Amino acid sequence: MDDLTARVRAIAEERDWQQFHTPKNLAMALAGEVGELVAEFQWLTPEQAGVVMDDAEAGARVRTEIGDVMIYLTRLADVLGIDLREAALAKLAEVAVRYPAEEVKGSASKR
Amino acid sequence: MDDLTARVRAIAEERDWQQFHTPKNLAMALAGEVGELVAEFQWLTPEQAGVVMDDAEAGARVRTEIGDVMIYLTRLADVLGIDLREAALAKLAEVAVRYPAEEVKGSASKR
Amino acid sequence: MDDLTARVRAIAEERDWQQFHTPKNLAMALAGEVGELVAEFQWLTPEQAGVVMDDAEAGARVRTEIGDVMIYLTRLADVLGIDLREAALAKLAEVAVRYPAEEVKGSASKR
Amino acid sequence: MDDLTARVRAIAEERDWQQFHTPKNLAMALAGEVGELVAEFQWLTPEQAGVVMDDAEAGARVRTEIGDVMIYLTRLADVLGIDLREAALAKLAEVAVRYPAEEVKGSASKR
Repeated sequence: MDDLTARVRAIAEERDWQQFHTPKNLAMALAGEVGELVAEFQWLTPEQAGVVMDDAEAGARVRTEIGDVMIYLTRLADVLGIDLREAALAKLAEVAVRYPAEEVKGSASKR
Repeated sequence: MDDLTARVRAIAEERDWQQFHTPKNLAMALAGEVGELVAEFQWLTPEQAGVVMDDAEAGARVRTEIGDVMIYLTRLADVLGIDLREAALAKLAEVAVRYPAEEVKGSASKR
Repeated sequence: MDDLTARVRAIAEERDWQQFHTPKNLAMALAGEVGELVAEFQWLTPEQAGVVMDDAEAGARVRTEIGDVMIYLTRLADVLGIDLREAALAKLAEVAVRYPAEEVKGSASKR
Repeated sequence: MDDLTARVRAIAEERDWQQFHTPKNLAMALAGEVGELVAEFQWLTPEQAGVVMDDAEAGARVRTEIGDVMIYLTRLADVLGIDLREAALAKLAEVAVRYPAEEVKGSASKR
């Protein structure tokens, strides 16, 4: 187990939050946090969004929301017994096969 | 930079996908993948959701969706210049202070 | 055009918000509001969620979030030239054919 | 009760889907459908997204996703005993007061 998973688990267990941390509830919490992250970008132009980290206040909010999303994703994966890094690498291996670089270069048609 | 970030970046660059990987677009892609993950749990009872990984097919889908979410979260953080692990640890430190274990034990009132 | 669509449009036009109300931005705003709505339910047990409207404070928050989601959905449909009610009825007609009542009765396997 | 609410309710009751249509589950289904809707726009440029309805295939998918979102929003409101139109109008009245047209004209700073 990596140290972030361990830290998130410790925070939860010390507070008896395991009872709330069911897969359904954590999936909902993840959706809620992603909603907050998306909201940071919703009214920005693409240009403004590209330099959002240069703004001290907006940048700090984005970093916090990214942290929140990562915390709930880590916790959900832990509760389900999934290794987050391995799950991502396994999917990347699939992507690499399904979208050969030379064939899809510069195209977004990923369906 | 950790190896997952490097791997996601390489997959994107080899395919000239940088043009699509703006913060707004990646935040949207993240919301889309979280929607798919949430959908895996929507009609399950809490009991069924608790053992979803025991079902070979549903478990494989959940693992894939978790991988997808992690990929886009990793890519968004990379594009924004945010260290995912540090952002999560920074937020956890705040949580630990804001919700002292002895005070909030067993309570979900986190607002 | 129904009166809600007209009212949402008027609010936006009086404030020169048309420039922000692009399909991408409105889809993001919708995701953000749905995230807030989901967050209202995330730590509730199914039983607590079933009586959430009996709680004056939580009920008022849920009503407000439902209103927010409806406003952005109405605005997005308007900007895209889609009749919300007709789009829903068209999809319901498909559902009725794809899931004949006598065949799927009591089953959630909707995929 | 408006006719769309009645139609959605009939579809659900004829299939014994009331057991699945709890507030938590419907909020999750709504998040899942909004995720699919957002995904339709994620890789489009703002310009492409602005004319998405001119594309027969993409336009049809967007209309279907909008219909799906409206169906689950209607069903969730029905299960909670909330009048969707009234909830939206009540929120609009608040918005009109909080953001006086002459003060916020052309500004997106809605926080």
